[in-house]
Amino acid sequence: MAETTPIDVDALVERHLPDVTAAAAAAYARGFHSRYPERPTDPAYGDDPFPEGEAAFDAWQQRGLHLDQPTTGGLIVGEVSPYGPQLGISYPTVDPAALVAAAADALPQWRAAGPDVRAAVCVEILDRLGARAHELGLAVHHTSGQPRVMAFQAGAPHALDRGFEAVAYAHAAMTRHATSVRWEKPGKHPTVMHKTFHVAPQGVAVTIGCRTFPTWNAMPGIMASLATGNPLIVKPHPATVMPLALVVEVAQQVLVDAGFSPHLAMLATEGPDEPLARRLATDQRVRVVDFTGSSAFGEWLEEHARQARVFTEKSGVNSIVIDGTDHAAGMFANLAFSLSLYSGQMCTTPQALFVPRDGIDTDEGHLSFEQVGERIAAALDDLLEPPEKGVQVLGAIGDQAVLDRIDEARSLGTVLADSRALDHPQAPEAVVRTPLLVAVDAGDAHAYDAERFGPIAVLVAAESTDAALEHVRDLVARRGAITFGVHTREDKVRAQATEVALDAGVSVSFDLTQGVYVNQTTAFSDFHATGANPAANASLVDEAFVTCRFHLVETRIHAQDG
Amino acid sequence: MAETTPIDVDALVERHLPDVTAAAAAAYARGFHSRYPERPTDPAYGDDPFPEGEAAFDAWQQRGLHLDQPTTGGLIVGEVSPYGPQLGISYPTVDPAALVAAAADALPQWRAAGPDVRAAVCVEILDRLGARAHELGLAVHHTSGQPRVMAFQAGAPHALDRGFEAVAYAHAAMTRHATSVRWEKPGKHPTVMHKTFHVAPQGVAVTIGCRTFPTWNAMPGIMASLATGNPLIVKPHPATVMPLALVVEVAQQVLVDAGFSPHLAMLATEGPDEPLARRLATDQRVRVVDFTGSSAFGEWLEEHARQARVFTEKSGVNSIVIDGTDHAAGMFANLAFSLSLYSGQMCTTPQALFVPRDGIDTDEGHLSFEQVGERIAAALDDLLEPPEKGVQVLGAIGDQAVLDRIDEARSLGTVLADSRALDHPQAPEAVVRTPLLVAVDAGDAHAYDAERFGPIAVLVAAESTDAALEHVRDLVARRGAITFGVHTREDKVRAQATEVALDAGVSVSFDLTQGVYVNQTTAFSDFHATGANPAANASLVDEAFVTCRFHLVETRIHAQDG
Repeated sequence: MAETTPIDVDALVERHLPDVTAAAAAAYARGFHSRYPERPTDPAYGDDPFPEGEAAFDAWQQRGLHLDQPTTGGLIVGEVSPYGPQLGISYPTVDPAALVAAAADALPQWRAAGPDVRAAVCVEILDRLGARAHELGLAVHHTSGQPRVMAFQAGAPHALDRGFEAVAYAHAAMTRHATSVRWEKPGKHPTVMHKTFHVAPQGVAVTIGCRTFPTWNAMPGIMASLATGNPLIVKPHPATVMPLALVVEVAQQVLVDAGFSPHLAMLATEGPDEPLARRLATDQRVRVVDFTGSSAFGEWLEEHARQARVFTEKSGVNSIVIDGTDHAAGMFANLAFSLSLYSGQMCTTPQALFVPRDGIDTDEGHLSFEQVGERIAAALDDLLEPPEKGVQVLGAIGDQAVLDRIDEARSLGTVLADSRALDHPQAPEAVVRTPLLVAVDAGDAHAYDAERFGPIAVLVAAESTDAALEHVRDLVARRGAITFGVHTREDKVRAQATEVALDAGVSVSFDLTQGVYVNQTTAFSDFHATGANPAANASLVDEAFVTCRFHLVETRIHAQDG
Repeated sequence: MAETTPIDVDALVERHLPDVTAAAAAAYARGFHSRYPERPTDPAYGDDPFPEGEAAFDAWQQRGLHLDQPTTGGLIVGEVSPYGPQLGISYPTVDPAALVAAAADALPQWRAAGPDVRAAVCVEILDRLGARAHELGLAVHHTSGQPRVMAFQAGAPHALDRGFEAVAYAHAAMTRHATSVRWEKPGKHPTVMHKTFHVAPQGVAVTIGCRTFPTWNAMPGIMASLATGNPLIVKPHPATVMPLALVVEVAQQVLVDAGFSPHLAMLATEGPDEPLARRLATDQRVRVVDFTGSSAFGEWLEEHARQARVFTEKSGVNSIVIDGTDHAAGMFANLAFSLSLYSGQMCTTPQALFVPRDGIDTDEGHLSFEQVGERIAAALDDLLEPPEKGVQVLGAIGDQAVLDRIDEARSLGTVLADSRALDHPQAPEAVVRTPLLVAVDAGDAHAYDAERFGPIAVLVAAESTDAALEHVRDLVARRGAITFGVHTREDKVRAQATEVALDAGVSVSFDLTQGVYVNQTTAFSDFHATGANPAANASLVDEAFVTCRFHLVETRIHAQDG
């Protein structure tokens, strides 16, 4: 732990709380709101942010990680970047029971701090991470393999905005009730009581990070748990520890500066074959678990971590229905980007694209099913050639299982666009692949009835648009989905698709032809997942995401003036 | 189903919505608020409400139950009152899958009605039940065995107020977000989208009623589920069907009058040995379950109804710590009432009363442990003699298991007040028992380490007040508790007890010596349970109780003006 610079907590509350309140109002209004600029060259990030960020990232690796938490004394060597370098941060080995005990010991102090102070401390953590956004982005880039600019945006400002949103929701929910009241029951002899309402956390919280979006998917749970008073243990995916290690290091620094125990935020890095997440999640003192990752482990958690509130984001099959378009060129370019971004390694990437067998009507005339496939393939080429441009969209693939899936998927149907290897001009070791697009018939349900995480999409010939929508309804109900897109020229189809979306519990984007993509949601305006289908039992971020992380404890006594 | 009198839904919204909004504000402020007068002779209930209520109750039995729902054609004969009479309402037999299918079919219409209309319809249901409060109270009296006035108050106005509170919370939560927004992302070429946010219910809801408080414990879940758009199936306890049958009959009438399907509220009465609750709760289309009852079945539901949000109130051990008092006479009278009310058949009745072995300081001087026991016994006699007065507090016991438990509990320790049978002057068949009070040492943990539902209390000699508080912390954490009371003259002890309450997750009442009892909570001001200990995973009513009964589905499209 670096040196402590004491924070005046009252001043911190005065500085940050108005922003928290404004952020909650913005979240309820759903308009544009952001605290952390998404442009990497924004003046907020310095005069020359790219080289400065890289220098800071190197300096951090020189310095090493400084955490104040129980350790079993060992060190876990850091990750190897999908772009080549061995990363220079090592992580302490831990005993899960010791972490939970330390967290539980720190709870009463954090509970007593109250909603305002906790929210202000959380915002300060976010702001200090915001000041180190390029370091955070590089940590995401070099572990997840996300392309550089995307890793910055999704990994730093967007993730921090999601965290800020969670703080705002949590604060609003915790402060919506009076903290005390003089209760007077009318009558001949009125009964008068003094009642006090205390916000109490559920217990120790655990956030289990995912491989592909270590910060974006984790920050909402991290901030929601901390803000509501739950001491936090962060268990990153073993392949992408570094970004969350930085988050925990900064959180501990702020907590200590503000006079709190560093054990309110701790890092749990697992060694090989160590079931750390299972042990943490099933500890009786752990009462909140946030998880993003496989359906298998998400379901295991839901089944076994019964003492906790378990928030899961698992896998699903995201669909697009193409009924027609008024802007064919825009539609195909938009779809190509959605399929390509980060090599399709997003829980929001479209996987099944349903098109009526007889083709679609567009501003460019009728296009047959085959022509739709050709146009998507051409749009992929446009987007990804030359390779030095393509790698900026695709990033690198760090997981062998993704490569295996591509190979297997070729045999699903007719290959419309094959997955190709691209050379990364700056990183010869990087494994880069373009998306695979395969055409199948709706009768070949096995081809689209399962998630195939990675740059793999299936163009499905459906009987009709009606039939396509019914396929989506069924897929979402059985397999889950985070996203759903529809292209059409007809209000009737939009209304029909909205009913399907409501029945199945998935949000829908219509006619995206410009710079908004179906796989992207923005904090404060778009909800990420609904919590209503098998892909996720929670939404980032809504009220259900925060209200069951704390409870209210009442004390009452006859009023002295009663 | 009786004749339909169409309701103008817009006018209904105009009439009820301001009250719903005001009720939400009141709930957040936690002051006194009530819609349904608790005085049985309030003019709202007619000129001569007792005989009029009885006449209406008889007339209802003559008329019989009229429900519009799928039935298997059989009839289940009504209950026998613990006060003697065979009750005259029979219930239709049902096939659970057919009920769920009918409910699911009715869902889209109810979802489309939106939060305002649903809230207004819910209030209309409550108001019509309020107009029949004496019938509802008599139905509770003659099934649960609650004494007449208590059955009226807890069974009708208080239950309806809790339901109203749930509607208010649900409406506030559903309407907190904008329903649509023009989202503009700043930039050289601003991106503009039009976004719409739809409130969607989780699916079919099931409320499983309990034997002792058929309406009070069920109305919050019933109203929270209906208001948030979930079609509802009510499965009462087989011994106390009648009150909830009236609720469903009235709900169907209002729904039909307002132009909705009666299948949005249906009754599921089970025959002998029919596992109806299990079948309903585990149906894949059932997404919300509310349950009050045994820990065994509550835990079964939590384990098996995995497709649903399950809200449970189970059993626990409620404690009182007596450290001292400034008003000994008031304290003993208050405790005697709490132990006696409805023969201790409340989930909030104190069961373990901890007293320092060396006695306590009071306004009447020092009282030894033995003297404390004697004074409680004397206060019980004062309250319950003569029998015609006693039966008005005790009510009748309808469950043989309660009587068996009394017999078993005598051997737990030294009997300070034995449980006696009282003759009910108006109902010779009624089984009435006074509370049993047994003294034990804190070392005899088996004597107080389990719920003994009924008129059974244990006075526990503890090493000290500190030790007593630690026993409570441990009991709440392991066994759960809905209530906790403390009597003391010391602020230090109050502070200590508050910490215990916060750690254990239970609310605490201090120094109740007047007309407020530890086992009573009042809608809009007191939270019933915290949801944070094994006695209940939810609180009646808070935001967590409503926010996960619905989800938000977003649709977005590029704005035409963008």
